Amino acid sequence: MTWLDLGEDSPYGTANLPYGVFSRGDGSPRVGVRIGERVLDLTAVLDDSVFAEPSLNAFLAQGRARWSAVRARITALLTEEEHRARVEPALFPVSEVTMHLPVLIGDYVDFFANEFHAGNVGMMLRPGADPLPPNWKHLPLGYVGRAGTVMISGTPVARPHGQRRVTGAAAPEFGPCVHLDFEAEVGFVIGSGSRPGRPVGVGEFADHVFGVCLVNDWSARDLQAWDATPLGPSLSKAFATSVSPWVVPLDALEHARVEPPARDPEPLPYLADTEKWGLDITLEVRLNGHVVSNPPFATMYWTPAQMLAQLTANGAAVRTGDLYASGTVSGPLPAQRGCLLELSWGGHEPISLPGGAPRAFLEDRDEVVITATAPGAAGTRVGFGEVSGRILPAR
Amino acid sequence: MTWLDLGEDSPYGTANLPYGVFSRGDGSPRVGVRIGERVLDLTAVLDDSVFAEPSLNAFLAQGRARWSAVRARITALLTEEEHRARVEPALFPVSEVTMHLPVLIGDYVDFFANEFHAGNVGMMLRPGADPLPPNWKHLPLGYVGRAGTVMISGTPVARPHGQRRVTGAAAPEFGPCVHLDFEAEVGFVIGSGSRPGRPVGVGEFADHVFGVCLVNDWSARDLQAWDATPLGPSLSKAFATSVSPWVVPLDALEHARVEPPARDPEPLPYLADTEKWGLDITLEVRLNGHVVSNPPFATMYWTPAQMLAQLTANGAAVRTGDLYASGTVSGPLPAQRGCLLELSWGGHEPISLPGGAPRAFLEDRDEVVITATAPGAAGTRVGFGEVSGRILPAR
Repeated sequence: MTWLDLGEDSPYGTANLPYGVFSRGDGSPRVGVRIGERVLDLTAVLDDSVFAEPSLNAFLAQGRARWSAVRARITALLTEEEHRARVEPALFPVSEVTMHLPVLIGDYVDFFANEFHAGNVGMMLRPGADPLPPNWKHLPLGYVGRAGTVMISGTPVARPHGQRRVTGAAAPEFGPCVHLDFEAEVGFVIGSGSRPGRPVGVGEFADHVFGVCLVNDWSARDLQAWDATPLGPSLSKAFATSVSPWVVPLDALEHARVEPPARDPEPLPYLADTEKWGLDITLEVRLNGHVVSNPPFATMYWTPAQMLAQLTANGAAVRTGDLYASGTVSGPLPAQRGCLLELSWGGHEPISLPGGAPRAFLEDRDEVVITATAPGAAGTRVGFGEVSGRILPAR
Repeated sequence: MTWLDLGEDSPYGTANLPYGVFSRGDGSPRVGVRIGERVLDLTAVLDDSVFAEPSLNAFLAQGRARWSAVRARITALLTEEEHRARVEPALFPVSEVTMHLPVLIGDYVDFFANEFHAGNVGMMLRPGADPLPPNWKHLPLGYVGRAGTVMISGTPVARPHGQRRVTGAAAPEFGPCVHLDFEAEVGFVIGSGSRPGRPVGVGEFADHVFGVCLVNDWSARDLQAWDATPLGPSLSKAFATSVSPWVVPLDALEHARVEPPARDPEPLPYLADTEKWGLDITLEVRLNGHVVSNPPFATMYWTPAQMLAQLTANGAAVRTGDLYASGTVSGPLPAQRGCLLELSWGGHEPISLPGGAPRAFLEDRDEVVITATAPGAAGTRVGFGEVSGRILPAR
């Protein structure tokens, strides 16, 4: 379909075309699209200054009609032989560019919308009681995170400090986190903002959300146990949240749409599904190179369309560049759990890495890499790139 | 001290000089300083393009040495007769300008740092138990808010929608908030950001915080009771947070510094006071023109210097334009309580307004105005302007 040689089964074919911000050498960051193992410099082939910006925001603010037009134009450039001479010089190997945070993030909200994850955490925290909080099946719960601590994939993650209270101790102590964890999540980037006082209906999801990325919401479990009640997780989450460099347009995920699971009770009318916005994205989590989990996003109880409806239901607006994430993605099987807290069952059942020591939580110099794919057009796979990070010792 | 006629006892004399962003007619927003009942257009008298920006951020990023130099220069312009001819044409009545959000806010964090407020809320929520959560006296607790819902004083506040569960009901319902409240708070604007991995010590507060404003953290109490557990307040807070237009520089508050209250237990070393950063700011809350409370900021258990140390203790950075607020300011007396939840004791003891109906919570068209003053140099008072808002009926 393209005059480019992509190799067989590339997850970055013309059915994908994810956007990112890259730079070469000392050049300024600009917008590119990934095709195979190359990045297309959009400033060289499209006449619009938004692509010379160091974030996607100006392009995102142009809205869905423009996103579709640009996607169609890029597809033409990459598939019609007549454009080859002009386009080829604007293609650079992804291995030779530096990727940057793709979006200047306004607000960052992290949900808790996976029933297996919420249930597992509830069983650990409240053994014998209902594992889900009483409000959990009535609305997608979430907390607001600090956008200033969101970082691009590959940025090392220093083990954070904080307060922890050792079981049985009267007072807390301050020091490096002991139970450091990852959380495999999927993130959604707001393209078109909404107006204050004008909630975004579940059916208006695609008018506002531009695309999808991967998120690792690094978590300090021992600090979280002490600081997260009653106002929610704070420093135990707000030290590092890593995001993948490539934002997969919603247009590339038409073939990944699936029915969400049955809900009981029925959601309130403002959260009722109008279209299927479950997404069949399969994540893969590797710890020091070994696959430790394959969380299935299709099992999410709440869809990203419902999350956006919830974010605006009170009358609040979302803005171009806002990012919201799903919360940890887990599935019904142990090998589908999206964080070490679940995989090691609170640290009591450490997992084994081939040739390595057992892991209850992350050790210094551990590296976590999360990737994902989804069904694309015509039997292809859509790749999401990766979000990675290596743990550095506490300062 | 100034060639301007300010009238007696102006809280906006040369000892104050708060900064804001204003516009005139169709003119572009720019930076000004308030002197008496006028605003000085800094673009007309200082040769620096940062003052032509529509927010204080570029000026804030210049750092404390520059803030001090500009303050000294403005003082000279307003006190030395030789500058009068040049400065007078750049002065405009505050009644004839439009004020804008002074800062492009990065992250917004709201603390819960007042012992009287936390204790009163705890007594209502957990009668018979310890009113304070076990971690409360060990760290300044806070939640992250949505910066996109922060608005300039005077913006009307539409009654938000949300989920509430009526006592005894099995399922929640969705509709307009019934228990709408204000929260009188003090906000702190980050001028110089910090570096990731480099916590800001309690003693470095003045290197990073530029100034102080007033905050009304509007709260939907009935929605909060349902959505705030276990991840903290979300939609019940994130519909509107109003801030005052004038940011009082920390330099103007030297005479307002007081010893914070005694702490028991002693804070951990990273939160230990190194200088007195209690601030003797007295707030006044008027509801439909009637004073309903005078919350004393001097009673805050945690100082703003400790809040900033906490925000960065895990290694997270703060950025120019980040805003953090104290949480509701209350004092030991009933007439010093900073929100209706406390003033009406959960709605059970409505307050009386002269000539008006009793108020348990806010009614449509109610107006809340919060003002404040603090001791300034040479026996003067430093005024903070006001943060106001009127409730509109639910959409």
